Amino acid sequence: MKSIKVGLLGLGTVGTGVVRIVEGHQEDLASQVGSPIQIVKVLVKDMNKSRSIQVPDHLLTENAWDIIGNPEIDVVVEVMGGIEPTKEYLMEALDRGKHVVTANKDLIALHGRDIKAKAKEKCCDVLYEASVAGGIPIIRTLMESFSSDRITKIMGIVNGTTNYILSKMSQEGAGYEEVLREAQQLGYAESDPTSDVEGLDAARKMAILATLGFHADVSLEDVEVRGISRIKKEDIAFAKKLGYEMKLLGIAERKDNQISVVVQPTMVSTAHPLASVNGVFNAVYVYGEAVGETMFYGPGAGEMPTATSIVADLVAVIKNMKLGVNGQRALTPYKEKKLKSDEQITYKNFVLLHVEDKAGVLAQITQIFAECDVSLDSVVQQPNPNNPDAEIIIITHYASRASMNKVFAHFEHLSVIKSMKSAYRVED
Amino acid sequence: MKSIKVGLLGLGTVGTGVVRIVEGHQEDLASQVGSPIQIVKVLVKDMNKSRSIQVPDHLLTENAWDIIGNPEIDVVVEVMGGIEPTKEYLMEALDRGKHVVTANKDLIALHGRDIKAKAKEKCCDVLYEASVAGGIPIIRTLMESFSSDRITKIMGIVNGTTNYILSKMSQEGAGYEEVLREAQQLGYAESDPTSDVEGLDAARKMAILATLGFHADVSLEDVEVRGISRIKKEDIAFAKKLGYEMKLLGIAERKDNQISVVVQPTMVSTAHPLASVNGVFNAVYVYGEAVGETMFYGPGAGEMPTATSIVADLVAVIKNMKLGVNGQRALTPYKEKKLKSDEQITYKNFVLLHVEDKAGVLAQITQIFAECDVSLDSVVQQPNPNNPDAEIIIITHYASRASMNKVFAHFEHLSVIKSMKSAYRVED
Repeated sequence: MKSIKVGLLGLGTVGTGVVRIVEGHQEDLASQVGSPIQIVKVLVKDMNKSRSIQVPDHLLTENAWDIIGNPEIDVVVEVMGGIEPTKEYLMEALDRGKHVVTANKDLIALHGRDIKAKAKEKCCDVLYEASVAGGIPIIRTLMESFSSDRITKIMGIVNGTTNYILSKMSQEGAGYEEVLREAQQLGYAESDPTSDVEGLDAARKMAILATLGFHADVSLEDVEVRGISRIKKEDIAFAKKLGYEMKLLGIAERKDNQISVVVQPTMVSTAHPLASVNGVFNAVYVYGEAVGETMFYGPGAGEMPTATSIVADLVAVIKNMKLGVNGQRALTPYKEKKLKSDEQITYKNFVLLHVEDKAGVLAQITQIFAECDVSLDSVVQQPNPNNPDAEIIIITHYASRASMNKVFAHFEHLSVIKSMKSAYRVED
Repeated sequence: MKSIKVGLLGLGTVGTGVVRIVEGHQEDLASQVGSPIQIVKVLVKDMNKSRSIQVPDHLLTENAWDIIGNPEIDVVVEVMGGIEPTKEYLMEALDRGKHVVTANKDLIALHGRDIKAKAKEKCCDVLYEASVAGGIPIIRTLMESFSSDRITKIMGIVNGTTNYILSKMSQEGAGYEEVLREAQQLGYAESDPTSDVEGLDAARKMAILATLGFHADVSLEDVEVRGISRIKKEDIAFAKKLGYEMKLLGIAERKDNQISVVVQPTMVSTAHPLASVNGVFNAVYVYGEAVGETMFYGPGAGEMPTATSIVADLVAVIKNMKLGVNGQRALTPYKEKKLKSDEQITYKNFVLLHVEDKAGVLAQITQIFAECDVSLDSVVQQPNPNNPDAEIIIITHYASRASMNKVFAHFEHLSVIKSMKSAYRVED
């Protein structure tokens, strides 16, 4: 029986996992797709590097064209990462009629439209389940299982590094810098952690999810991002005391076809299923008008979980090949993208102020909220144990971001406010 | 453009939801499948019954053959339930080349093999996402997203009625009978609750999940079932004190291609993601060798969630129609089914005994465990506040069911044991 021939771009952690699964599960995979799957060429940076897996020398190459330009190869699996030359490689592979499976969130978030258009033109599949939330099959779920529903909200813990840091800060009362260093030592954070801790990685994944969930072409620039590097351990302690866990959430919302997508530290009620997702685990909560609340939980990264998603995509590509329907299941976004204005984006807010401890201060502050049309859910004023100021903790009802920005602008000019210590979105 | 014509068997709660989604989401659905979807005939028991939804009279029929024998109809959606005449209807529909979408877990668990064989013969699709866990897309996840992995464990809270009852008993310390009555009043339990509370409903769903997850033909008789009707509120109090929640779990396990499937009340560690799934919600936890731990959470029943799954299946059928590949994606179980023996089924156990409060009793009891080759994780003996007996609470390490049965047989003949109050499986 003719085998399906796969070229692998990259043999790092995830690439190694792909080789392990394709070889270790050969019999099961063949039962599923009806023919053997064979990795015939692997692009590496350095042929002589020692590796945790045995790959015969003649399969390795340092020249991408041995894969892209190889007429024998049916499917290109891309796990090398990066934008260039990766994009060029994939476009050339598609041009030559090769199907593509990729784990590259950056590439899909930034150039997904071009790549999908090329795939469509060439009747090729481009699948990218592994690009978001590793082993959690959220892409296929949004594309197929919720095809009948109108999704109105997607909230995701889609970055394991930041979730590990926040979980540790919460569980141990430790500070950000200390936990980050520990995460770096354990390999859960990069030596330059910017992309993770500043929310960029999560933003890319949310752009991908929002595009699929809302059928509109959401790009990275549409995502407003705030990271976790300025979260203080006191903030997390306050959150816990009030019944919340601090999480870096990606939140994509749609109402009447108006969309907003943000990534920001959020105080999540402990009653919410996302609140108990800890460590490097990921979870995506999806709310659909008909289905209601659902959540999908699992490992967000790692060699084998990510490889599982890649090989599942590979199986899907091969089934499509056998049926002769490659490239015909992809759905192009068919709705016009309309972004919500700051007036239309509404949520609850937590605000912590340090104020002068004298009569009338609370009245002045609550007056500002009232003038800006923000109503309050709860207000607590207490003496500050460390200095002569008082602490005021406010949780608002749903308020527009525009109104809250007005409140914050007023605070700048109110002399009784010593400092605004923190402000966070709240999800119940 | 030619519309796709659907016949609906049944217009109860779920059927009503299907009509609502197909009509309410018409534009979105047409964008996905490339043509309008039209419900052209609906089988009802009584044409004159008043309904919560307006369906034009000429669409209703009391004669199933108006649908099954109607050459215009492309897809039959079955939401009438029951085994006969439902099975006959679906077999006849398939015989006439109609595709089938069904929510009928009983039918799939009992006659899935016949129905799928007929579908294969006729190149028709039979999809049944709604048959297990309502709005949670677990069937598609097992079939497609985990196609690359070897699933070794599936644990499911797949019955909302029993999860509601156990959650209430846990949260309020209430007794089984009391909460059951309340559930019946709220419509969460049937007036004859047997199928739910004795675990039969869950067993059917687990047979379906195990078949898909393990690629072997698991039937209902292979599932060992124990329900929740004998759980006492004291058991739940004990569980909580030890850090567990009582859940009715379906547990399907595979090791070296040996399978076991059970449904039984289980003490689940509060650290496990299944422990916090409360009320009528369902969740399915899947462990795969490569992917590791994943969990899928959502509404297990209800008009709109179940209808979401049905219409997603309908969309998949229609996409396959457009591509001309119906019936060609289904995978027949390709592994021989081998059931584990009682020696091969191992788990941790909780045992609560009332014993005579005198010297040497604990020694006698622990001696029995030792003789039966069961090692103990923890033992607590305490006075019983209500009578002169003592209480002994034992949690074992992993032990085979065969060994535990030997322990229980010995207990029968040990006069110092007044009664064995309860014994439960434990999952950490």
